[in-house]
Amino acid sequence: MAGNVGELGEFGLIRELTSRLPRTAAVEVGPGDVAAVVAAPDGRVVATTDVLIEGRHFRRDWSTAYDVGRKAAAQNLADVAAMGAVPTALLLGLVTPAELPATWALELMDGLRDECAVAGAAVVGGDVVRGDTVMVSITALGDLQGRRPVVRSGARPGDKIAVTGWLGWSAAGLAVLARGFRSPRAFVEAHRRPEPPYQAGPAAAQLGATSMIDISDGLVADLGHVAAASKVHLDLRAADFDVPAQMADIGQAVGVDPIVWVLSGGEDHALVATFPKEVQLPSRWRVVGEVLRPAEGGRVTVDGAPWERTAGWDHFGS
Amino acid sequence: MAGNVGELGEFGLIRELTSRLPRTAAVEVGPGDVAAVVAAPDGRVVATTDVLIEGRHFRRDWSTAYDVGRKAAAQNLADVAAMGAVPTALLLGLVTPAELPATWALELMDGLRDECAVAGAAVVGGDVVRGDTVMVSITALGDLQGRRPVVRSGARPGDKIAVTGWLGWSAAGLAVLARGFRSPRAFVEAHRRPEPPYQAGPAAAQLGATSMIDISDGLVADLGHVAAASKVHLDLRAADFDVPAQMADIGQAVGVDPIVWVLSGGEDHALVATFPKEVQLPSRWRVVGEVLRPAEGGRVTVDGAPWERTAGWDHFGS
Repeated sequence: MAGNVGELGEFGLIRELTSRLPRTAAVEVGPGDVAAVVAAPDGRVVATTDVLIEGRHFRRDWSTAYDVGRKAAAQNLADVAAMGAVPTALLLGLVTPAELPATWALELMDGLRDECAVAGAAVVGGDVVRGDTVMVSITALGDLQGRRPVVRSGARPGDKIAVTGWLGWSAAGLAVLARGFRSPRAFVEAHRRPEPPYQAGPAAAQLGATSMIDISDGLVADLGHVAAASKVHLDLRAADFDVPAQMADIGQAVGVDPIVWVLSGGEDHALVATFPKEVQLPSRWRVVGEVLRPAEGGRVTVDGAPWERTAGWDHFGS
Repeated sequence: MAGNVGELGEFGLIRELTSRLPRTAAVEVGPGDVAAVVAAPDGRVVATTDVLIEGRHFRRDWSTAYDVGRKAAAQNLADVAAMGAVPTALLLGLVTPAELPATWALELMDGLRDECAVAGAAVVGGDVVRGDTVMVSITALGDLQGRRPVVRSGARPGDKIAVTGWLGWSAAGLAVLARGFRSPRAFVEAHRRPEPPYQAGPAAAQLGATSMIDISDGLVADLGHVAAASKVHLDLRAADFDVPAQMADIGQAVGVDPIVWVLSGGEDHALVATFPKEVQLPSRWRVVGEVLRPAEGGRVTVDGAPWERTAGWDHFGS
């Protein structure tokens, strides 16, 4: 596909984009109609939306269009999984300058499609409009399969805190990229293309998780929302986290204590959940802390002390 | 609310935005969690998404934030209605410069909320990120209540074409605004705040509509999609449209034949549907043409001839 999206035109681009999309059994009306129709067998639908902007959430010189697609899909599908639901569908709003190479848009769609396939979902619709900056707006839908949704507000004193998925890998990869390096590959790849543990979300709901979120802004920052919503104190034990040797090596090379990546790094879309103490967790979950009764409002500590090392990310912060 | 969104911060803004939102019975988990959970009693969910960009889809000097919200919601909720579904929920992706007055964002949300209320839906979630231009990305969900979705591809030769809602009013209002006038109010208001005939969508599905869309880009342009998807020839009769006297007056004042607004004007989100000839239509529907067997591919004509007067809107066109 030669040329840019301006030459292809709105409808030409939509035709090319939708021609790449398979349908799943859950899709009754797919892309190309006024709206999509997707199965919601549970009788409820889980829905979440995120916006990614070039220069802020991705850089075209650091990530391919395909990786941006994988990542944009992953972060939304992970939100669905964090509710305890199985992802079913994804919608795309794409803002693009007329000069954007058409291949970029098509590879973005390939990335969305392939990440959806990993999670069992399908791209079912979207919108394409012209703007000055590339912007990708995603909405993901999911099905609870009869389960109770796992919300932020359910953590109870005495619960254990457990994590599953990659923690700090994306942040370590970003640190590498920001210093002009392209390796170690595993970390750079983790930054470019997170691998959320989709299946662990519904499974955690089944196991009786009392609260769950995916880690997008950093573990401590994201747990802050759980602490506030559940009105509890969440205490993490730094020594209980897994800091792989390779991560320690990079940390040494770039002068960062890798526990900062693990506790404050976002974008891996690992899952963190609270479970009643008596629940036997499968080995994919690692217990890293405990829910305490709050002395004062909801808060998060590490080994009993406040954690103040670059905890997370406020989009309007400097 | 004084100050701008940068001063309020991401989480402060989200807190203010979500505090304005009522829940409906359909909302099990509303704004503020990882994802929303919305009733989908039909066992399927209708989903559609649209992106609006400042300078392209709205101007802050021509429309208030409240009106942008009403309009952004309306165009998505109308898509849901055009499938024959009842709108249930709406998600917002908001891109905003840090300098945007916080009141603008809050009034936008008020507009979304109030338009949702008209359609029976609720704002259930969203995302807020910083960017250079104000951008509003909306996803709307709906429930089919057991009906078959009405798609673009169902029009059959012999069907009649009928419209309901306002046609050409928004375009006439835009013509007035573009010339620096603020009246006649009815047209300017129609441009600022469309009133889609939400209830007519599900009702049309019930009456046996064979195809349906809402008019966003212009009647002839949008019917082009129906003609192509259904592989039929759609012929409109210009004389059967209602051109109100006030619209004729403005047309004369600005030198535009008002039938151009009616046939080519977008953004009113009127509904156009095809029905089997024998269906008795309630008075809100106006029959304006007929579905013919195509001599060649799908096409749309007016009184048997091609319609070439500014038909619609390609976002990448010049």
